[in-house]
Amino acid sequence: MEEKLKKMKQLLGEIADLRAASSIMSWDQLVNMPEGGAKDRGEQIATIEAITHLKATSEEMGLLLDDLKPFQEQLDADSDDARLIKVTRRNYDKQTRVPADFVAEFARVSTVAQSVWEKAKAKSDFESFRPHLEKLVEMRRQYAGFFKPWVHVYDPLLDDFEPGMKTMEVQEIFNQLRPKQVELIRAIGEKEQVERSFLFLDYSEKAQWDFGMEIITKFGYDWSHGRQDKSAHPFTTSFGLNDVRITTRFKPNYLPTAMFGTMHECGHALYEQGINKKYNRTSLADGASMAVHESQSRMWENLIGRSKSFWVFFYPRLKEIFPNQLDNIDVDTFYKGINAVEPSLIRVEADEATYNLHIMLRLEMEIALMEGSLLVKDAPAVWNQKFKEYLGILPPNDEKGILQDIHWAFGGFGYFPTYALGNLVSAQLWEKMQAELPDLEDLIGKTEFEPVLAWLRKNVHVHGAKYEPQELVQKITGSKITPEPYIRYLEKKFSEIYGL
Amino acid sequence: MEEKLKKMKQLLGEIADLRAASSIMSWDQLVNMPEGGAKDRGEQIATIEAITHLKATSEEMGLLLDDLKPFQEQLDADSDDARLIKVTRRNYDKQTRVPADFVAEFARVSTVAQSVWEKAKAKSDFESFRPHLEKLVEMRRQYAGFFKPWVHVYDPLLDDFEPGMKTMEVQEIFNQLRPKQVELIRAIGEKEQVERSFLFLDYSEKAQWDFGMEIITKFGYDWSHGRQDKSAHPFTTSFGLNDVRITTRFKPNYLPTAMFGTMHECGHALYEQGINKKYNRTSLADGASMAVHESQSRMWENLIGRSKSFWVFFYPRLKEIFPNQLDNIDVDTFYKGINAVEPSLIRVEADEATYNLHIMLRLEMEIALMEGSLLVKDAPAVWNQKFKEYLGILPPNDEKGILQDIHWAFGGFGYFPTYALGNLVSAQLWEKMQAELPDLEDLIGKTEFEPVLAWLRKNVHVHGAKYEPQELVQKITGSKITPEPYIRYLEKKFSEIYGL
Repeated sequence: MEEKLKKMKQLLGEIADLRAASSIMSWDQLVNMPEGGAKDRGEQIATIEAITHLKATSEEMGLLLDDLKPFQEQLDADSDDARLIKVTRRNYDKQTRVPADFVAEFARVSTVAQSVWEKAKAKSDFESFRPHLEKLVEMRRQYAGFFKPWVHVYDPLLDDFEPGMKTMEVQEIFNQLRPKQVELIRAIGEKEQVERSFLFLDYSEKAQWDFGMEIITKFGYDWSHGRQDKSAHPFTTSFGLNDVRITTRFKPNYLPTAMFGTMHECGHALYEQGINKKYNRTSLADGASMAVHESQSRMWENLIGRSKSFWVFFYPRLKEIFPNQLDNIDVDTFYKGINAVEPSLIRVEADEATYNLHIMLRLEMEIALMEGSLLVKDAPAVWNQKFKEYLGILPPNDEKGILQDIHWAFGGFGYFPTYALGNLVSAQLWEKMQAELPDLEDLIGKTEFEPVLAWLRKNVHVHGAKYEPQELVQKITGSKITPEPYIRYLEKKFSEIYGL
Repeated sequence: MEEKLKKMKQLLGEIADLRAASSIMSWDQLVNMPEGGAKDRGEQIATIEAITHLKATSEEMGLLLDDLKPFQEQLDADSDDARLIKVTRRNYDKQTRVPADFVAEFARVSTVAQSVWEKAKAKSDFESFRPHLEKLVEMRRQYAGFFKPWVHVYDPLLDDFEPGMKTMEVQEIFNQLRPKQVELIRAIGEKEQVERSFLFLDYSEKAQWDFGMEIITKFGYDWSHGRQDKSAHPFTTSFGLNDVRITTRFKPNYLPTAMFGTMHECGHALYEQGINKKYNRTSLADGASMAVHESQSRMWENLIGRSKSFWVFFYPRLKEIFPNQLDNIDVDTFYKGINAVEPSLIRVEADEATYNLHIMLRLEMEIALMEGSLLVKDAPAVWNQKFKEYLGILPPNDEKGILQDIHWAFGGFGYFPTYALGNLVSAQLWEKMQAELPDLEDLIGKTEFEPVLAWLRKNVHVHGAKYEPQELVQKITGSKITPEPYIRYLEKKFSEIYGL
């Protein structure tokens, strides 16, 4: 049995190496590659991914998992090996339930759809994208079909991003959250808007870069196991647990983009850098779920980076770097400015109070599309109507409405809710951390991030993908994912800022 | 048959994609990777290489090649498809003759040997490296054994780098070359040395970088299919024919390192960028041999970059960039300075007139080691004695003697001669180009490199690996590789510089 386990680990190691190869090639494509290399790079990645899929779904792997079943049952169910076999089995079953020709066909359809979407978005022309979206919706419904029986057609899609989590759980959480958030935004809307024009001055890229580096170095980002580069869209990627890289982007006339983007990606990277090194090159060398991952990026970006304590140290530093731009702005004005709440059209630019509403709208539409109760042709009208209802604005066109995100164009239904769940988890973990580190705000004010990172390492990071997200959150906080802490956090913060 | 050819091309495409993946990972390791990623990266590359080897030596490939044999014989022997099948067959036979466990064992031995060599070199301690070199010599002799029958034990090693070329051919060439080079150096040694202290001043890295970029952009390096970065040792790598990258390095107190290094790597890159795009992702998407590759790098570095014509335009530019350093230096003094001949200990720092002697010494020793007529334990003494004989200097220790190069530490016997052959081929091609472009020097003086590059593209680059090196040189110049043009080149150039 030890031999078989060793063999499985060896196979998982090879799969991890192949995945790392794809990731390195994708990172290079987004960070370094000359434009002329694009076509070849597409083929190179496709070849590696095909080989990876063959290995991950091989009969050899299936037989090993079958053989290891009795062994797993003898082990302590919470031991690393038992969990490794369990997670590997889950991944294997998910991948082998889907026929290879479906996978290939879906890859083709979604590649075409993405390029059509790009043009459709530029021209705000939903109609040209419609047949592609219809095909993707149909194929995702088919995909869900491979995982029958289920309670809800959306369950298998959600499960790809949040292992073990059910549609109904997410709906319940969002149903509690929605009225509170809508009410908060309404209340803020009645108050005078805070000043923030100073964020839109000319901020040199070089100085922005250096400031971001200073922040994340203090956060504890490990430069001997990572690096930061520039790319069109910021992202985090890892090639095993010992090389976890982030990217950022700059807007010369808007300070928050790079600053908070860098903190956000650093949050993701700290998670990956903190996973138990023993799990390297196995199925456990990953985050617990997208939501848990997002909880880490959002925590460093928002609960820390957009907190008042954070700027006790960093605002004087920032003023040293940009004395002209921030000359007459005191720390309180700055703090309010970076936390301004204003319903807006674009999700990725949304503030903390409105962000989740963008997500809820998408989730409702995804569920309806999957159920078949909403047809693609009616989706733009429904989008606009819901947007008006939740955020009080009517999108002027589809480019700034239903076409704004790439997710549906690659068929990524099930992905969006993880962003909002991540926000909730970040606050839920934060309350627990505050209880265990009573001087938390003080530590942040003094840039002593070690205890914060140590707490996250011990409670969240080290476990990697060993636990399912609900299980992990329960284990740490004593309850499954719940919206109350996030609601408390929002209400406290914005009551103070807007004098509600 | 068309179907089988298509299938073979598909397999070759996958192999090319896997090779590209390894190359990207190696490039990243040398250019970007944080130090903590080294161990994982080693495993990732090893996994990809093992999969590549399996595919390249698969039974499927063997059967396809067998099936395609009659088809190949019907085709015009010089057609792309006939040559593709031929080259693929040659590569397949070479790879399958060597047992897989030997390949794995050799990889292990050479990995260990390289790390021992590094330490041995630092301490100038040949004795600690000796057993590893003995093992490598023994294994290379064994390797040669897999390719019996041959005329000379060194033939199969040479063939890995110079397909089709025989040891005896190289020996004949070098035997002609050696006395001429020794005599030239002796004659120069009697003359007064040229001034070159101005090369050792403080030259800012940024300005050196910009100057190098300006030069290779004029050479015709295609930035939409390549890029330049910094690395500890300069190299060229390609990920298919559409992404060919170079690296360079800087010495703040020695101008020639980056400047000529950049031109050298650009020469390699222009070759790869110029290969027929139809050959992409096949066995023909490669240089004809290491020597032909080196002929291209040496041509741009030396025959162009170290020529008097080149500096007609570029010396005034260089003086604009470094006015203080070059204030009192006229172009003639500069030209002589960058061409100074001086026997020295280290191959990679050798000038054009002495370089080949470093190589000949190594080739003689490699042949003797393979024949068994020289024992590893006696190699340092023989090295020193030959060095004194050819270059007039006695190495003060093994670090600056037999331990200076990494090649033997990875078992790369057969590699060194290609450097000297490359020099010869560069001059041989140059004479032919001069005959066909009579205003060649004038064009260079005006930085009109297009006709030069066009000539190389048409005669050398476009063919990729379609022809064996001797065949290609014969096809272009009317004779196989011969030392006369290089001897004529050296004698003319240095007679003028040193007033011989």
